[in-house]
Amino acid sequence: MKIKYNIVPVETLGQARYPSPLIGTDYISFIDDADGSINQTLFSEISTSAQGQGVEFFELAGPRESIYFDPEKIACGIVTCGGLCPGLNDVIRSIVNSLWFDYGVKTIYGFRYGYKGLTKSSEFPPLKLDLEVVDEIHTKGGTILSSSRGNQDIAEMVQTLQDYGIKILFTIGGDGTLRGAQALAQYIKDNNLDISIVAVPKTIDNDINYIQLSFGFQTAVEAAYRIIESAHIEAKGAPNGVGLIKLMGRHSGSIACHATLSDINVNYCLIPEVGFRLEGSGGLLAVLKKRLKEKQHAVIVVAEGAGQDLIGGELGVDLSGNIRLKDIGLYLKEAITSYFENEKIEVNVKYFDPSYSLRSVAANAFDSAYCLFLGRHAVHAAISGRTNVLVGFANDKYIHVPIAMAVGTCKQVNRHGDLWHMVTGATQQPNSIFL
Amino acid sequence: MKIKYNIVPVETLGQARYPSPLIGTDYISFIDDADGSINQTLFSEISTSAQGQGVEFFELAGPRESIYFDPEKIACGIVTCGGLCPGLNDVIRSIVNSLWFDYGVKTIYGFRYGYKGLTKSSEFPPLKLDLEVVDEIHTKGGTILSSSRGNQDIAEMVQTLQDYGIKILFTIGGDGTLRGAQALAQYIKDNNLDISIVAVPKTIDNDINYIQLSFGFQTAVEAAYRIIESAHIEAKGAPNGVGLIKLMGRHSGSIACHATLSDINVNYCLIPEVGFRLEGSGGLLAVLKKRLKEKQHAVIVVAEGAGQDLIGGELGVDLSGNIRLKDIGLYLKEAITSYFENEKIEVNVKYFDPSYSLRSVAANAFDSAYCLFLGRHAVHAAISGRTNVLVGFANDKYIHVPIAMAVGTCKQVNRHGDLWHMVTGATQQPNSIFL
Amino acid sequence: MKIKYNIVPVETLGQARYPSPLIGTDYISFIDDADGSINQTLFSEISTSAQGQGVEFFELAGPRESIYFDPEKIACGIVTCGGLCPGLNDVIRSIVNSLWFDYGVKTIYGFRYGYKGLTKSSEFPPLKLDLEVVDEIHTKGGTILSSSRGNQDIAEMVQTLQDYGIKILFTIGGDGTLRGAQALAQYIKDNNLDISIVAVPKTIDNDINYIQLSFGFQTAVEAAYRIIESAHIEAKGAPNGVGLIKLMGRHSGSIACHATLSDINVNYCLIPEVGFRLEGSGGLLAVLKKRLKEKQHAVIVVAEGAGQDLIGGELGVDLSGNIRLKDIGLYLKEAITSYFENEKIEVNVKYFDPSYSLRSVAANAFDSAYCLFLGRHAVHAAISGRTNVLVGFANDKYIHVPIAMAVGTCKQVNRHGDLWHMVTGATQQPNSIFL
Amino acid sequence: MKIKYNIVPVETLGQARYPSPLIGTDYISFIDDADGSINQTLFSEISTSAQGQGVEFFELAGPRESIYFDPEKIACGIVTCGGLCPGLNDVIRSIVNSLWFDYGVKTIYGFRYGYKGLTKSSEFPPLKLDLEVVDEIHTKGGTILSSSRGNQDIAEMVQTLQDYGIKILFTIGGDGTLRGAQALAQYIKDNNLDISIVAVPKTIDNDINYIQLSFGFQTAVEAAYRIIESAHIEAKGAPNGVGLIKLMGRHSGSIACHATLSDINVNYCLIPEVGFRLEGSGGLLAVLKKRLKEKQHAVIVVAEGAGQDLIGGELGVDLSGNIRLKDIGLYLKEAITSYFENEKIEVNVKYFDPSYSLRSVAANAFDSAYCLFLGRHAVHAAISGRTNVLVGFANDKYIHVPIAMAVGTCKQVNRHGDLWHMVTGATQQPNSIFL
Repeated sequence: MKIKYNIVPVETLGQARYPSPLIGTDYISFIDDADGSINQTLFSEISTSAQGQGVEFFELAGPRESIYFDPEKIACGIVTCGGLCPGLNDVIRSIVNSLWFDYGVKTIYGFRYGYKGLTKSSEFPPLKLDLEVVDEIHTKGGTILSSSRGNQDIAEMVQTLQDYGIKILFTIGGDGTLRGAQALAQYIKDNNLDISIVAVPKTIDNDINYIQLSFGFQTAVEAAYRIIESAHIEAKGAPNGVGLIKLMGRHSGSIACHATLSDINVNYCLIPEVGFRLEGSGGLLAVLKKRLKEKQHAVIVVAEGAGQDLIGGELGVDLSGNIRLKDIGLYLKEAITSYFENEKIEVNVKYFDPSYSLRSVAANAFDSAYCLFLGRHAVHAAISGRTNVLVGFANDKYIHVPIAMAVGTCKQVNRHGDLWHMVTGATQQPNSIFL
Repeated sequence: MKIKYNIVPVETLGQARYPSPLIGTDYISFIDDADGSINQTLFSEISTSAQGQGVEFFELAGPRESIYFDPEKIACGIVTCGGLCPGLNDVIRSIVNSLWFDYGVKTIYGFRYGYKGLTKSSEFPPLKLDLEVVDEIHTKGGTILSSSRGNQDIAEMVQTLQDYGIKILFTIGGDGTLRGAQALAQYIKDNNLDISIVAVPKTIDNDINYIQLSFGFQTAVEAAYRIIESAHIEAKGAPNGVGLIKLMGRHSGSIACHATLSDINVNYCLIPEVGFRLEGSGGLLAVLKKRLKEKQHAVIVVAEGAGQDLIGGELGVDLSGNIRLKDIGLYLKEAITSYFENEKIEVNVKYFDPSYSLRSVAANAFDSAYCLFLGRHAVHAAISGRTNVLVGFANDKYIHVPIAMAVGTCKQVNRHGDLWHMVTGATQQPNSIFL
Repeated sequence: MKIKYNIVPVETLGQARYPSPLIGTDYISFIDDADGSINQTLFSEISTSAQGQGVEFFELAGPRESIYFDPEKIACGIVTCGGLCPGLNDVIRSIVNSLWFDYGVKTIYGFRYGYKGLTKSSEFPPLKLDLEVVDEIHTKGGTILSSSRGNQDIAEMVQTLQDYGIKILFTIGGDGTLRGAQALAQYIKDNNLDISIVAVPKTIDNDINYIQLSFGFQTAVEAAYRIIESAHIEAKGAPNGVGLIKLMGRHSGSIACHATLSDINVNYCLIPEVGFRLEGSGGLLAVLKKRLKEKQHAVIVVAEGAGQDLIGGELGVDLSGNIRLKDIGLYLKEAITSYFENEKIEVNVKYFDPSYSLRSVAANAFDSAYCLFLGRHAVHAAISGRTNVLVGFANDKYIHVPIAMAVGTCKQVNRHGDLWHMVTGATQQPNSIFL
Repeated sequence: MKIKYNIVPVETLGQARYPSPLIGTDYISFIDDADGSINQTLFSEISTSAQGQGVEFFELAGPRESIYFDPEKIACGIVTCGGLCPGLNDVIRSIVNSLWFDYGVKTIYGFRYGYKGLTKSSEFPPLKLDLEVVDEIHTKGGTILSSSRGNQDIAEMVQTLQDYGIKILFTIGGDGTLRGAQALAQYIKDNNLDISIVAVPKTIDNDINYIQLSFGFQTAVEAAYRIIESAHIEAKGAPNGVGLIKLMGRHSGSIACHATLSDINVNYCLIPEVGFRLEGSGGLLAVLKKRLKEKQHAVIVVAEGAGQDLIGGELGVDLSGNIRLKDIGLYLKEAITSYFENEKIEVNVKYFDPSYSLRSVAANAFDSAYCLFLGRHAVHAAISGRTNVLVGFANDKYIHVPIAMAVGTCKQVNRHGDLWHMVTGATQQPNSIFL
C-alpha cells in the first residue's frame, strides 16, 4: 500500500544561525530539521481524498540545535487576549522560565489588557517580567497581564514592538487573537522586519483544530461537573425538580458533552451541533413530562449555542438595539415552566448559569503541566526563527501549525462520532428529541 | 449587684416515666432537670430592661435519666421542608442513629417532599429509615427525603401521624416549617394526643434567633468565598472589570458579611440591614468610578434582599402578573453599565448569581459534626416528652427553646455591631454610600 | 440568688492618652472601660467553689476611644513561632491592615523565623510589611515570616525591639510562645520600657484555655476528614482491611474527636485523655477481630498522644540516644498485624500518617474570617496600651486574657462530657476497650 | 516512500453471528472489521528497524454490527484486583450500564475481593449488579467489589464462571491481573469453552504499554500536587526547611514527573529510571547544602522505586526475615539529617508519605469520563467475541491489544525524552546529581 504524504511548511524569519545554549545540556533531544525522515515528524489523521489516501506531516515542536535569535540581545513580549481560561498564568510562567533558564533572555515584557496594551493609547506600560514576578502566579486563575477583546491598529502595535525592541511576541488567545497574530506577522513580513509571532492557542470550548485538547478545558469540565452535581441534588430535592444548567460552548458542545460524561446523572444534553425540538410528542417537553412522571426529577445540560433556531429573532434584541443571541438557558427555563403550567403539573425548575465561575479558577494539576509544555515549546519555536505559527498538540505530540491553517476553522462534536454516541448512551436521551 | 433571672419553660407531654436505656452507659452525663441550680442551665445574653438587669436561662439539651416514651413501642417520623441546606442528610442520619443506638427505636419513617408527604394526597409513601439507608447519606448534599414548600392541612397531617403510629415527629426546616410545627403541636394538645413535635431549625441565612450559628451556614460561606475569588479574578482580568456577586440573604446579610470577611478582596458589601444610595457624589456609582480610575477593578457583594427600595415597584411584576421582589443583582448590573456608558468609560461587569450551587453541596466537616449534635439533642428532647420545642445553640451550648420564642423573629446584622464594623474595615468601603 | 463575680484585671503600660483615630468613624461601637457595668463584660463559665458560686468577668476586646500610643510615631512588630497552622498569614494580614487602616501605623516589621529573628545572630533582617506585601497572603498556607522553635535570650530580643523602635510586638504562637511573650513583658516591665506584648494564641490541637476554638482547627479537621474518608475506602477495598489514621494531638484528642464526628465511618477513636487496652477479651484487638468477622473492615483514628503507656520505655529512644515518645500509630499497626498473624487471620492494615499535610493548608473561609477578628482585636488591645495579654474567644465573644492565666494550662477532652459521649455514640465503640 | 505495516491480530471465540441490538440506533458508527483499509485502523508509533520502517496497526475498539453472544442468554462477571486506583467504580458502572442499555444483558455478577472471589473458598458470594446498585458508585473512591492480591487456581476459577453461567469476564487490574486473565483465556481455549476474557488495564503508575494514559493517573497526580504544595509551605516555614515527599512509582517515575511539572516548586525530582548520587561534591547532599545556603528551603520529590542501589542490602530485611525494598523516603530523610548534623547546619526535614491517600480518592471529572469510554469499549469487544484482549488507548484512539503484548512490559520515563527534559528544566536540578 502506498501512502502519499505532504509536509506542512512553517514560515521562518530566516536561516537559523546561532548555536543553541542548550547544547551540552544533558537530557535533551534536539529536533533535527535537516533530517526529513519519517521518524522526525508526525502522522496526522489519515485522510481519504479523491487523489487517494494521503498523510499530512507536521513539524515536531521542540528545541533545535541552531537558533535564529541571539538570546542575549533580544527582548520578548507576551500578551493575553480574549476571555479568561484556566492556565493563562501557567503559560506566562512557562514562557518566562524557558526564556530565562533555557536561553538566557532576561528582557521580557508583559503587555497589559490584550492587544490594547500594544497601542499608543494604552494607559498601562508593560509589566517587566522576571522569575520573581511569575514565581507563584500559577496558583491563581486569570492572567496577571489582564486581557481585553477587540482589534487594534496593526501598524501601531508593530511600532510598539519596535519601540521596546521586541523580537518575539507570544500571543495567547482564541480565534480573534490568532487573526491578530496573523495580521501582525503579515505586516512584519511586508515591512521586512525581524520579529517573530508565535501563538499559544486558547479556547476553553476546545474547538480549535490541530489542538487535540485545549489548555484549561479539563479544569473547566471539572468545574462544570460540580455544578451538575448541585443541579442533580436540587432536582431530587423538590417535587418534579428539573436541574437546568447552561454551560459554555457557542459553536461546540464539547464542554457540555464531557461534563455530561463525567457525571452521568444528566438526562438530556443539548449542543449546538445537534438540533432539537421542544414541541410534539417526541419533543423535549413531552419526553420530560414522561420522565418526571416516572422519576420525579431530571437534569438538563445545555450549551449556550444550542437551540438558537428555536428562539424568535425579535426577542434577540437588547436594550441598546443590538441583535444578540438569545439566552437558551432562560428560554428553556420559561418554556418548561409554561408547558407544565398548561399541563397543570407542578414543576420546580432550578436554573444554573455558572458562566465565569468555570473559567476563572486556577488550572488543575494536569492543565498546569500541560501549559508548561505549551509555553516551553512556544519559546523553542520562536527562538528558532519560526513565525506566524502556533504550538499545536495532536496524536499526543507537540507540533508547529501555521496560524493560517487553524484560524477560522472550528472543531465541533461529530454527531456520528464516538463522543456523541457515548453521550446518548450515558444519558439514555431518546433520539426523538433531536432533529 | 443583683441579677434577676427567668427560666424559660418548655412544654412537655407529661411526666417522664421510664428509665433511660442510656443508664449504665459509660461516658454520659445526664442533665438533671430537678436540679434548678444555676450550673444546670445557661445564661443568655444579659438584657438591660426597665425592670433592671435580667438574665434568661434556657434548659440545657442533653439526655435525661427519665424518659417519657417507651422506645420499643413507638414509631418516629422525620420531615425536611423548604429550600435545601448543607447538612440536611447529616441531621437525618444523626436522628436515625440516635433513635436506633441510644434508645432502640427501630420504626422510623421519613416523610417525602416536606409536609406534603404527611397529607392524604401524597403520592409517595414514607421511606422506611434504618442504619443501612442512612449509612453514607451525609456525603451528599440535599435531602434523601426531598422537600417542598407550603402549608398543608393540620388535621390531615396529624391523622397521617396517627395512622403510622408516630409518637415523635422531627421537623427540619425554616420559619415556615416552625410555624407548621407549632400548629401541629397546638392541634395535638387541643385534641389530647400524645405526639411530640421537635424541630431542628434550618436557615442557611443564619437568621433564626437562639441559633448562634445555623447548620450549613459555614459550608455555604465557603462556597460563596470560592465564587468571590472567581469574581475577583474576572474583575482583574478585564479593563475596568467589576465582579458583581449576588448572594443569598432575603432579610439578613449574614452570608454576605461572612463571605466578605473570608476573602477581603471585596470592595463593597451591600446588605438588607443597611440602606445604600447609588446616585450622588457619595453614592455607589460615583465611588465606584473613583475606584476604577485608581485600581481598574472592583468587587461588589450584594445580598439578594438589599436595596429593594431602589427599584421601582412597577418593575417587580413577572409575566404572570405576580408582584415579586426585583432582582437587585441584575438591577445593579444594569445601573452600573448605564452609568459608565453615560460617562463614556469602558466598564466590564461580570455578574455572578451562584444561587442554588451554594446550598446544594454536602456539609463540610464542621457542619457534619454540628448536625450530629443537633440531631442527637433533638432525639434526647423528644424522647423525654418535650414538645413544641426546637434545639437551639447559644453561647456554645445546646438548649431547648420553645418554638414560639423563635418563630417569626429574625436575627439580623447589627449595623453598629462588631460584624458590620469588621466588614467596613475589611472592605474600606466609604460610609457615604450608606443611608 | 446571688452571684459573686470577679473582674479579671489586665496589665497596661499606662493610662490611655490619645483620642482614637476611629472616633467619628461610622459603624463602630467603642468598648467603655470606665463603665464597669455588667453589659460591658462577659460572663465566663459559672464555677461553683467552696466560697459559693462565682462568675469571672473578662474584659471585652474591641476598640477604645482613648488609646495609649500615638500611631504615627510608633513601629510595630509581628512574629510567628512554633509549628505551622492554617490561618497564620490571615492573622498577619489582619494585623497589618488594622494597624494601617484603623490607626495609621505605617511602620510594621515582620521578624523572620520566630523569636530567632529577634536575636543578634539572626541572618535575616525583618521583612517590611505593608498593604501590598500582605495583599494575597491569606490564600496560602504557612507563614510568610517563617517560623522556628525554641527559646532565645530575652534581653537580646528586647534590645532588637528597641533598635527598630518597636512599641508593640504581636506574637503568634502556642504555649512556648506565650511563655516567651510573658518573659518579654516581664523584662520590659522590670526595665520600665514602654513596649506592649500582645499574643494571638495558636494551637492546632485546640487545647489552650479561654480559646473556645483555636484558629486553623476547623481547617485541620476538614483535612483530617478527607484522610479518614481515604482510610475508609482502603479498609473496604481489601479483605479484612483496617484503615488506621494517626492524627495530631499530643495532649488533647480534640482533632481526633471532631474528625471522627465529621465522618462517622470511624469505628474506634483513641485519645490521650482516655486510656485503652489492647489485650484481653474486651481489648481493642479482640474487639477488632469480632468486628472484622462481621463487617470485614474497620477504621481506627488515634491521636498521637494516645496510649503512650502501652509502649515499653526502652523502645522510646531514638538513634541519638534521646528519649522520645514512641509512635503510637506504628505501634498499633504492628500490634494489629502480629495479633492477626498469630490468629492466622488475614488482615490488611492501611496506615495513614498525614502529619504536616493537615496543618500547612490555607485556612478555610471560616478560619480566614475568624483570624481577621483575632488580628484586629489584637491591634485594638495593643494600641490601647494593654500588654502581657492575649486575645481570647469564649462564649462567642472576643476577650482579653492575661497571658499568665492561659499559659501552662491545657484544655482537654472531658471523658464525661458531651463531646466524648457523642464520639462513643457515633463510633459505637464498646467501653470494654477503655480503662 | 514505502511503509510496511503489520496488523496486530486479536483472538476471538468464533465468528460473530448475531446482529447487534445497536443497529437502528441513531448516532452510532460501527467499526467495519471486514474492511481492512487503512482508515479503519490506527497507526502506532513509527518504528525504524533493521528491516526498514514499519507501522503497526491495531484494531479500533468500538461497536460491531455483528456480535458473537446472544445478550439475552448470557451472564457476565466483573472482578477488580490489586491495589486501589481512582476510577474503579466508574469502570464497573460503565460496564454495567453498557451491558444493560446497549445490549440488554441483565445478569451481571460482581465477584468480591479480586480473583479470590472466583475460588471455591470464597466466603462472599458475588454481588448482583444492576442499574440501581451502580447508580452513584462513581462518586466514591475504591471499588464496591473490594479487591485482593495474589494468584488463584485457574481451573477452580473457570469452574466458578461456569457455575454462574458467565460468558464474559471483565478483569480490571494491573500486570498480575493481566497474567491471570491470560491464563484464564488459555485454559478456556485449551478446554474449548466459550468464555471471553476482556481486561481493562489499571496502573496508577501509568506504566503499561499501549495505554497512553492509565485511568486514575491524573486524579492521583492532582492529589500528589496538593501534597507537594503542603511540603513547599512546610519547607518555607522553618529554618533550612526541606520538604521531602515520597510518591508512588515502583518502576516508573511517571507520577513523580507529572506532579513535579504541576507544581514547579519542586527542586529535585528523583525517579527509578535515572540513578542519582548522594555523596561527593556534585551529589544531592552537597547540592542541597548549597541551595539551602542561598534559599533556606528546598522541596524533593522521590518515587518509591528510586535509588534502591543506594541502600545497603542488609537493611532491607523486615522483622519477619523477608527481604524487602528499603524505604527510599526514610533513607533520604535520615541521610539528609545526618549530613547536616555532621556539617553542624540546622536542617528541618518535613517528610510526607501520602501513600494510599493518593489512590483512594474518587476519580476527577476527566478520569470519570475516560473510565466511561474504557468500560464501554470493553463491553463492545467482549460481546463481539474477542477474548484475551485488553482495551488500550493510543494516539487518542481506543484500540484492542492482545494481553500477551502488554503483559510483562513496563513503560518507563525516557531519560532522553521530552518529559524528563521538561522536569530538569522545571526544577533546574543540576545534572551532577545524576549518574
